[in-house]
Amino acid sequence: MTSIYWYDNAFLPEEEVRISPHDRGYNFGDGIYEVFRVYGGNLFEAEAHFERLRLSAAGLKLALPWGLDGLRAAMIELVERNELKEGIVYLQITRGTAPRNHLFPAGAAPVALAYTREVARPVQAMEQGIPVVTLEDIRWLHCNYKTLNLLANVLAKQEAADRGAADAVLHRGGIVTESSASNVMIVKDGVLLTHPPDNLILHGITRAVTLRLARVAEIPSDERPFTLDELYAADEAFVTGTTVEITPIVAVDGRKVGSGEPGPITLRLQREFAAAIGR
Amino acid sequence: MTSIYWYDNAFLPEEEVRISPHDRGYNFGDGIYEVFRVYGGNLFEAEAHFERLRLSAAGLKLALPWGLDGLRAAMIELVERNELKEGIVYLQITRGTAPRNHLFPAGAAPVALAYTREVARPVQAMEQGIPVVTLEDIRWLHCNYKTLNLLANVLAKQEAADRGAADAVLHRGGIVTESSASNVMIVKDGVLLTHPPDNLILHGITRAVTLRLARVAEIPSDERPFTLDELYAADEAFVTGTTVEITPIVAVDGRKVGSGEPGPITLRLQREFAAAIGR
Repeated sequence: MTSIYWYDNAFLPEEEVRISPHDRGYNFGDGIYEVFRVYGGNLFEAEAHFERLRLSAAGLKLALPWGLDGLRAAMIELVERNELKEGIVYLQITRGTAPRNHLFPAGAAPVALAYTREVARPVQAMEQGIPVVTLEDIRWLHCNYKTLNLLANVLAKQEAADRGAADAVLHRGGIVTESSASNVMIVKDGVLLTHPPDNLILHGITRAVTLRLARVAEIPSDERPFTLDELYAADEAFVTGTTVEITPIVAVDGRKVGSGEPGPITLRLQREFAAAIGR
Repeated sequence: MTSIYWYDNAFLPEEEVRISPHDRGYNFGDGIYEVFRVYGGNLFEAEAHFERLRLSAAGLKLALPWGLDGLRAAMIELVERNELKEGIVYLQITRGTAPRNHLFPAGAAPVALAYTREVARPVQAMEQGIPVVTLEDIRWLHCNYKTLNLLANVLAKQEAADRGAADAVLHRGGIVTESSASNVMIVKDGVLLTHPPDNLILHGITRAVTLRLARVAEIPSDERPFTLDELYAADEAFVTGTTVEITPIVAVDGRKVGSGEPGPITLRLQREFAAAIGR
């Protein structure tokens, strides 16, 4: 089946989607995005994703002429047209097409692009866990906006792969922020710790879901900065994200985390998450 | 005359250039660029621009399969095909087209796009000077690479315009780095000061030309960090850039710089620059 895209307010076959070389997304990365998880044909945590999209747009002073309801209707129709059951919807919105100039263009309308992709749950990584390396977080100071300026994330992820790891955990001066494309949590003495939701991290939807599941399960949690040393000494560690869900970190910079196996609180949260998505 | 673009190794009419929605420039801002000034049909300081392009590519581990000579030949042919006498050449290179994944794509070839635009020298701004505001520099820590991740620059420039200024001078904790799209220099007691060329600023070609002209003119200069207070108290201030050339700053945050008119060393450097480009 040909993949159907949503582009510039129309549903089109993938091969008909062609972007202008003057799209500000192409010249400046001047835009925002969301990746929605689809389980059983439904957008998971749709409201939270659209609310974050709204906040990202506000941060960039980017208009959303479709309204969140219009965008949601388009995403639902896109999933239906592509008969997607298990996968993701990628939605990005740029400030539009105009002759290159840093200033916001006066007459340009934002350009939205969305498509679906079949993606299975990362069962093996979730069961076995992943090794990570740590890298300095060199990103800008608005990591809470989900923007198309992702070079630092790209370079960190690639550096991790070059060193034989699955991801990079970033830190600013020894304070762990998040990983290249997900949030990081540790468990120490039964308490779940993760960076507070400020301007230094993306406010992950799966992060929020995990904290909510922990509260229900009466696992104590604290949104406070923690250090690299605390990560090295953690009993358990994991990343949370829309596609990685809750994936254990079993090694950091070549050192085992805890026993080197996914820990009991991680496993408990994975089970609660699976239940939340109907598995 | 239809504008001729250079895209994906071919010369094409502008309207035939269409970018893939999976170009990494569009999804990640994963690419680099240069803006060349054309005076009298010739690329000004071409060698310095290509050398900086090489350094940006190295920083991003981005291959340049054309070689610098191949790129230069293409840019010269592009200027000729467009019969450009006075203007700019915009060249950007992305990591290529591949299904969205932070990791570098294995099989993708970098995608180059270049076009020309007629641009007159900004005579009025160069004669009268511009007002600027100061803003915190919130960018990442590789500002020496000339990348497509320009959101912080875009937002700073727009914020300046919203406040009635022509540009924003950025500072990190009170240390002036550069402006939203050019370098900043001040004059105090006859000495030219500008931020050293480290990872916090773009190493401007016009910046280097200006320092060279100062040396020849026996104007003392020092590449050292200076503060916002030094900017406020400066005798003269100006920005340097490929399109702005040497443009005086006559007001900062609503306060006059020096007399509020372009100063004598600024005017001297402008004359030397004009001579260097054959005016």
